[in-house]
Amino acid sequence: MKIEGRHYRTLWPDADDARVHVIDQTRLPHRFETRALATSADAARAIADMIVRGAPLIGVVGAYGFALAMGEDASDAGVAEAHAKLLATRPTASNLRWALDRQRTLALGTPQAARRAACWAEAGEIAEEDVRFCEAIGAHGARIIAEIAAKNPHRPVDILTHCNAGWLATIDWGTALAPIYKAARAGVALHVWVDETRPRNQGASLTAFELLGENIPHTVIADNAGGHLMQHGRVDMALVGSDRVTATGDVCNKIGTYLKALAAHDNGVPFYAAMPGSTIDWTMRDGVREIPIEQRAAREVTHISGLGADGAIATVQVTPTGSKAENYAFDVTPAKYVTALITERGLCAASADGLRGLYPEQST
Amino acid sequence: MKIEGRHYRTLWPDADDARVHVIDQTRLPHRFETRALATSADAARAIADMIVRGAPLIGVVGAYGFALAMGEDASDAGVAEAHAKLLATRPTASNLRWALDRQRTLALGTPQAARRAACWAEAGEIAEEDVRFCEAIGAHGARIIAEIAAKNPHRPVDILTHCNAGWLATIDWGTALAPIYKAARAGVALHVWVDETRPRNQGASLTAFELLGENIPHTVIADNAGGHLMQHGRVDMALVGSDRVTATGDVCNKIGTYLKALAAHDNGVPFYAAMPGSTIDWTMRDGVREIPIEQRAAREVTHISGLGADGAIATVQVTPTGSKAENYAFDVTPAKYVTALITERGLCAASADGLRGLYPEQST
Repeated sequence: MKIEGRHYRTLWPDADDARVHVIDQTRLPHRFETRALATSADAARAIADMIVRGAPLIGVVGAYGFALAMGEDASDAGVAEAHAKLLATRPTASNLRWALDRQRTLALGTPQAARRAACWAEAGEIAEEDVRFCEAIGAHGARIIAEIAAKNPHRPVDILTHCNAGWLATIDWGTALAPIYKAARAGVALHVWVDETRPRNQGASLTAFELLGENIPHTVIADNAGGHLMQHGRVDMALVGSDRVTATGDVCNKIGTYLKALAAHDNGVPFYAAMPGSTIDWTMRDGVREIPIEQRAAREVTHISGLGADGAIATVQVTPTGSKAENYAFDVTPAKYVTALITERGLCAASADGLRGLYPEQST
Repeated sequence: MKIEGRHYRTLWPDADDARVHVIDQTRLPHRFETRALATSADAARAIADMIVRGAPLIGVVGAYGFALAMGEDASDAGVAEAHAKLLATRPTASNLRWALDRQRTLALGTPQAARRAACWAEAGEIAEEDVRFCEAIGAHGARIIAEIAAKNPHRPVDILTHCNAGWLATIDWGTALAPIYKAARAGVALHVWVDETRPRNQGASLTAFELLGENIPHTVIADNAGGHLMQHGRVDMALVGSDRVTATGDVCNKIGTYLKALAAHDNGVPFYAAMPGSTIDWTMRDGVREIPIEQRAAREVTHISGLGADGAIATVQVTPTGSKAENYAFDVTPAKYVTALITERGLCAASADGLRGLYPEQST
């Protein structure tokens, strides 16, 4: 998608396949900088430090990291080590494990000398698949937006989103934002309420930055405000991404998503989650009990970074010195609060039956 | 209550009754500074700029502002002007109107020459009443905490609070925090989850600062985290203040309170709101439809202040330049999600019958 009129993806390999380049998302929206990942350690650090984030993008960077690791040690022990090292970077997102499992299977079925090249090509294929899947999610979700627009032809469709599930969270298009981009390109009038998404502010920074780049009308709000807006009829639909969906349709997503789903339910606002099939964890049935929730550094709560008055990026401490903080990165929205899931294969109910209907090959 | 071992109130008059001093709450928790209010314009500005905030404290500062206005123009026209000017500073809190109505009635029943002195004394009496009422709220609410503690004797009671409804929001003791202070002094082991309360961070700054001063164990969390904690049994009760309660028990409080009430309801966590009787608006029956919700400057969302690395207070911009923001200061929690109201007269159901039972003089 576009930044200041120029098309970007979040990730692109060198012409000679030596390195992969990513946008440093910790610097957005104030600075546009890229990082070159030349080693598997670079890739692991980029994921752990959230230079790249977003479940689908993490999966692709993990896949490239695995390919880089095969250039460092292509032995079977190296395969196991690369898988373990990259998987440990973020515990919650399902896509990372999915991509690493795929690379491990490929590597073990390939002669050692060919493993790096095969895995590099596979990482590229995973990236291309992600673009195709996100575009399909966009097409399916845009129909929901168009239906709401058809019922209210004289005003924009108001869509609330949480965190960043846009193109910056994927390779291109995004998951939750893909339907918005597709609908906007089809001429549907819409407006996006952007939850700032504390503590890391991915909404206020990344989602707002994306929507500016695509000229989509939007308004940043505190995470606290969505319930009030829904009580007053200011939200037509809520649309979020996901880091892991259970086989029963429970949706794990950025911390605070659950609160918005409750408010949507209380006010009759439809609540959708959008994700590619790689986000579905077919081994889990109870999201609240089973999905591991990453705890991140307390400093992400106690300190906030932004653009200082002098134009430099600065960090300020908001809590008194001496108060401790805790930082839970995700929560789980029970399936009963999810109107439907939007996948690359279409919509389905957030339920075991709904998911099996779309992914019959998982029924065994 | 205590700051670094020394007892303070939020407000104290000069010995010669010329001025009233307040703690500048916009500088907390990083700086302890006081401001002297010498004119009614000073008082109005202190309320509008949130140098003082919290519904009960706003009421008392409004009352002192009214007395100062009587020193500037004690005519009947001056009475009307002072009432209107001070009422316009913040639209949502009920206590401000209550205190100004009380001062207006007193002034109009007093000879002009005696109006300033009478209203000054009355402001002092309103302040003393607030202290007594808050202490009584504390005693009533502490019994709820003690009951929970009795059921779980081997661990602290986990209480979640939103915004700042502590002594800094009143004259002393606080509303929602008064039960916590009373229970802690009675030896009940407890721990407070402090919602940071974006956009102004009154939880992360003021509530954390208060709890540090009183040595109460606490943990600051993003506003997004409370639902996750409740899903995992980490919250025994939610306890908030209020800026206006309808005659039917709907609770208007800082934006985001409604989301926490929904999560409490979904997880069987009791949800209490604490307030003095002056917070009850007996003229309103439907909080969501009737209570005016203040909209504040977008800059409170797009910019955040805190302590910079150099020890100076600095402000950083978190959104990209070009994205707009909106800032709704309060929301309304429907009475059905409120387990009980805690007032200076005791507990009651959040309902018309419950409130009439405690305040029978309002039944006419």
